[in-house]
Amino acid sequence: MLRSCTAALRTLRALRGRREGASPAARDPVLARRWFSTEKVIPKDHALPNPSWSKDLRLLFDQFMKKCEDGSWERLPSYKSKYTQKSEDFKTCFLDSKLVKEQLSQAQLFTRGYEDGLGFEYVIFYNDDEKRTVCLFQGGPYLQGVPGFLHGGAIATMIDAAVGMCAAIPGGIVMTANLNINFKRPIPLCSVVVINSQLDKIEGRKLFLSCTVRSADEKILYSEATGLFIKLDPEKSLI
Amino acid sequence: MLRSCTAALRTLRALRGRREGASPAARDPVLARRWFSTEKVIPKDHALPNPSWSKDLRLLFDQFMKKCEDGSWERLPSYKSKYTQKSEDFKTCFLDSKLVKEQLSQAQLFTRGYEDGLGFEYVIFYNDDEKRTVCLFQGGPYLQGVPGFLHGGAIATMIDAAVGMCAAIPGGIVMTANLNINFKRPIPLCSVVVINSQLDKIEGRKLFLSCTVRSADEKILYSEATGLFIKLDPEKSLI
Repeated sequence: MLRSCTAALRTLRALRGRREGASPAARDPVLARRWFSTEKVIPKDHALPNPSWSKDLRLLFDQFMKKCEDGSWERLPSYKSKYTQKSEDFKTCFLDSKLVKEQLSQAQLFTRGYEDGLGFEYVIFYNDDEKRTVCLFQGGPYLQGVPGFLHGGAIATMIDAAVGMCAAIPGGIVMTANLNINFKRPIPLCSVVVINSQLDKIEGRKLFLSCTVRSADEKILYSEATGLFIKLDPEKSLI
Repeated sequence: MLRSCTAALRTLRALRGRREGASPAARDPVLARRWFSTEKVIPKDHALPNPSWSKDLRLLFDQFMKKCEDGSWERLPSYKSKYTQKSEDFKTCFLDSKLVKEQLSQAQLFTRGYEDGLGFEYVIFYNDDEKRTVCLFQGGPYLQGVPGFLHGGAIATMIDAAVGMCAAIPGGIVMTANLNINFKRPIPLCSVVVINSQLDKIEGRKLFLSCTVRSADEKILYSEATGLFIKLDPEKSLI
């Protein structure tokens, strides 16, 4: 529902820095703090192949990495945004002070909370000129609805994540205001799908987006959705 | 997206059996097979309090259990529907024969795949006369979106599960065709919300439903949604 502006902003900073030829740490203050602290906590980027990725997912990944070579597409890194890893802006703007610290210390990003291969395996690529993202997604066995197929909620989750990222990069801190999803066909568990998202228009603080979910070979249209996202004022609390 | 007709049918059988005074095993052939087999696999009902439930969730649970005493409401049991535990009808109707058995052997219901307290803690109550369900839901720290708040996908998942159950009991085997969700306010992580779902109308094979997601004290409206579900023919394969 709420887009991680930390991740989006960090990604943007990294992208901008890369274009400007800066070093990774110089591009990203959060990363820099981590790299040069005594803790030496280097976050793991989960948007990279691991042994659980199927041949289909690896093939698509390689195709998009090739498209990244001329700079038209960018692979977006992805981290578990644990409480202890979040940046200062979230601390001041968004955190519910009443929440028990114990619970928050266990918190992790919903889409990155599984062991490799069991849950959401995905990577998102962004095309800045076309204001669109492509998310390659393999839904693991822990995301089951009816036996043999993905749970509708898991599809909705990945749609929210993919469309939301497409909104967060141009929009900054955004919140999902509406998701309207048409489920056309069930998605077999452990298969690979491609989620194409695009920014259709911006009206004031509103960003209108749409997406399709198709099979790896693009022959089957599994779902389509629209999303409305609202730009937030980082100075205001959410609750 | 697809409603577990096994769970819904099993629940219905159990409810009918209970009303008719039959023994638990006699009410439910699947349960009976399990109870009287040499394996003695008794599934765990997850829709019951565990130590991770907050005071708010326990209080609401007790209130609804009291409403169940006169038979107007029923608590719906909830199981991890693993591959090895599913009933024969799914094997023949829905299973993708191309799926690797290894992957399926790990499969588990998306909403029941977490250790107690970390993910989806919920219980659904059903009122047959009013054709509505109430889902009491506590979203754990593994369902985080922006730090401190539930991921929109986790909310969508619980809406799909709650509204879907409200459709599956009168509708039998149903599939989510559309979910349209308005996210009005972010939901603090580890708080308790109440999802009220109701069947609005049936037109042929289409079931139209709606729901609201409110805080435990009902003062805050977090989300509202509509759902369209389609009755499926159990004789036809889904893929």
